[in-house]
Amino acid sequence: MISGIEKILSGEARAVARAISKVEDGVGDAAELMKAVFAHTGRAVVIGITGSPGAGKSSLVDKLALLYRQRGERVGIVAVDPSSPFSGGAILGDRIRMQTLGLDRGVFIRSMATRGNLGGLARATVDAVAILDAAGYDKVIVETVGVGQDEVEIVKTADVSVVVLVPGMGDDIQAIKAGIMEIGDVFVINKADREGVLRTEKELEALLSLAMRPDYWQPPIIKTVATESKGIDDLAAAIEKYYEYQRRTEASAERRHAIARWRILELLRERLLARTLAADSASERLDQLAAEVADKRRDPYSAVETLMEKPEAGSQKPE
Amino acid sequence: MISGIEKILSGEARAVARAISKVEDGVGDAAELMKAVFAHTGRAVVIGITGSPGAGKSSLVDKLALLYRQRGERVGIVAVDPSSPFSGGAILGDRIRMQTLGLDRGVFIRSMATRGNLGGLARATVDAVAILDAAGYDKVIVETVGVGQDEVEIVKTADVSVVVLVPGMGDDIQAIKAGIMEIGDVFVINKADREGVLRTEKELEALLSLAMRPDYWQPPIIKTVATESKGIDDLAAAIEKYYEYQRRTEASAERRHAIARWRILELLRERLLARTLAADSASERLDQLAAEVADKRRDPYSAVETLMEKPEAGSQKPE
Repeated sequence: MISGIEKILSGEARAVARAISKVEDGVGDAAELMKAVFAHTGRAVVIGITGSPGAGKSSLVDKLALLYRQRGERVGIVAVDPSSPFSGGAILGDRIRMQTLGLDRGVFIRSMATRGNLGGLARATVDAVAILDAAGYDKVIVETVGVGQDEVEIVKTADVSVVVLVPGMGDDIQAIKAGIMEIGDVFVINKADREGVLRTEKELEALLSLAMRPDYWQPPIIKTVATESKGIDDLAAAIEKYYEYQRRTEASAERRHAIARWRILELLRERLLARTLAADSASERLDQLAAEVADKRRDPYSAVETLMEKPEAGSQKPE
Repeated sequence: MISGIEKILSGEARAVARAISKVEDGVGDAAELMKAVFAHTGRAVVIGITGSPGAGKSSLVDKLALLYRQRGERVGIVAVDPSSPFSGGAILGDRIRMQTLGLDRGVFIRSMATRGNLGGLARATVDAVAILDAAGYDKVIVETVGVGQDEVEIVKTADVSVVVLVPGMGDDIQAIKAGIMEIGDVFVINKADREGVLRTEKELEALLSLAMRPDYWQPPIIKTVATESKGIDDLAAAIEKYYEYQRRTEASAERRHAIARWRILELLRERLLARTLAADSASERLDQLAAEVADKRRDPYSAVETLMEKPEAGSQKPE
């Protein structure tokens, strides 16, 4: 029996919160929980939102969530907080702004922090999204500061990926370049009451016109002023439109396959490391080897070979 | 015999470039090469430089490299390019500016791109730094767009970590918060001819005064205008000062231990995954499992268990 699975499926917030903590820590029956949850996923529309620090992502997420609430939908929000110098505080700080939203029982908000040695932030985030999906949230919004590779991967797993820019990025628009073509299904120029919005729009249009998407979708550019709730309807409409579009295309099946493959590899990487480190005295040996490498008495490659040679945890048989 | 190891140690640029490609791809005798290289590392001063897109990191790196060259030192530059929407193009684009530097035989410039399935960008970057170190480069500068967790980890492995800010970040200074305390040994406010430099400096000072560093170092704040070569001397002096300081502290030994531990885990994670995927028909089975997960006929956790049960590469036993 999976403890609390019925409560999760009936959307009970405390059971959902506990389940997310479980997959975040990766302990106990997290794997059994996810196996049980998985069959109930696929109903939510998962929206990934990314952009530079200061682009106003959190305001945008707040307003989008409010709009969905007004339509009677339940909304889950997962904010990825990589605890990095440039973003660590932002998401948590911004969550203070969401206190009103947080009191709404139709909204579930969760920050995901950097994982420890085993990695797995991306895996844990995708699991949290699956739990919210299974718990009956109609929309699940994943917010990341999307500059690192893990953060980009997370946004790629969404049904619809939204990239948020601001006017007057100047040289930064150059910095966006090719990679963005792959990831953005919908583009937002937030703070669109600022100077330079037309120039940013033109530059973005020029960049997008060069893109060759496998699904032939032409990503729209939506202008918003999130703090004044302007353009949020347009954004919701664009998200909806792409969501409907992608369901009908062949590219969508390929994307689902790529996401599944990526999920398996992320999880496999984490599990293999956990199994090796769970071996008898592995953590003492790791510390010892780290000391030897730090003193240059041993190189890291030899250290890893030593760790890989040893039998694994719980194994009684010779392998 | 390790092919080319003598050429690497004598600093031959082509041998160095080939060696870095080898560790980037992780193929062939990459492990043997790194084992041979490792004993010759530890002489270079490794400087990590990170900051938001648009902070002018590349100009700063260029000017710092020029300064070291004027002092007769050889400089290696490793630019981490995570191919993400916000940074992918910037580093490569900026490298065009470095054409003059690139023609200088005392400077070695290399961009590291995102790795494939196996991950390992951070591991490959640290290996590239070790190769440049062994090849006799006096200074090795690692430049990252430091918002993702991998990128932050890379900068942490440097002897001296430099965090670059710009004036008028406004709300973004809030976004910097706690995490930055751990990572920055030297702070730079670049584009210091812009409005708001005093305010940014005050805010940063306030943040830094709250920091509790294990080594009691008070990170200096250096103001630069990299495009006009202003403040570069001060930056070099601050880097030098921290480098000398940290060599004398206990915290330095702990830091080296933590870095060694992190390197071992990064490499172990990559190697374990590679071993599993090298098993007979593993890639076909991965594709098959991904298809089942994509169609929701199977959950990712069960898929991973299936992959982990199978005997590993080189095994002769029936599957």
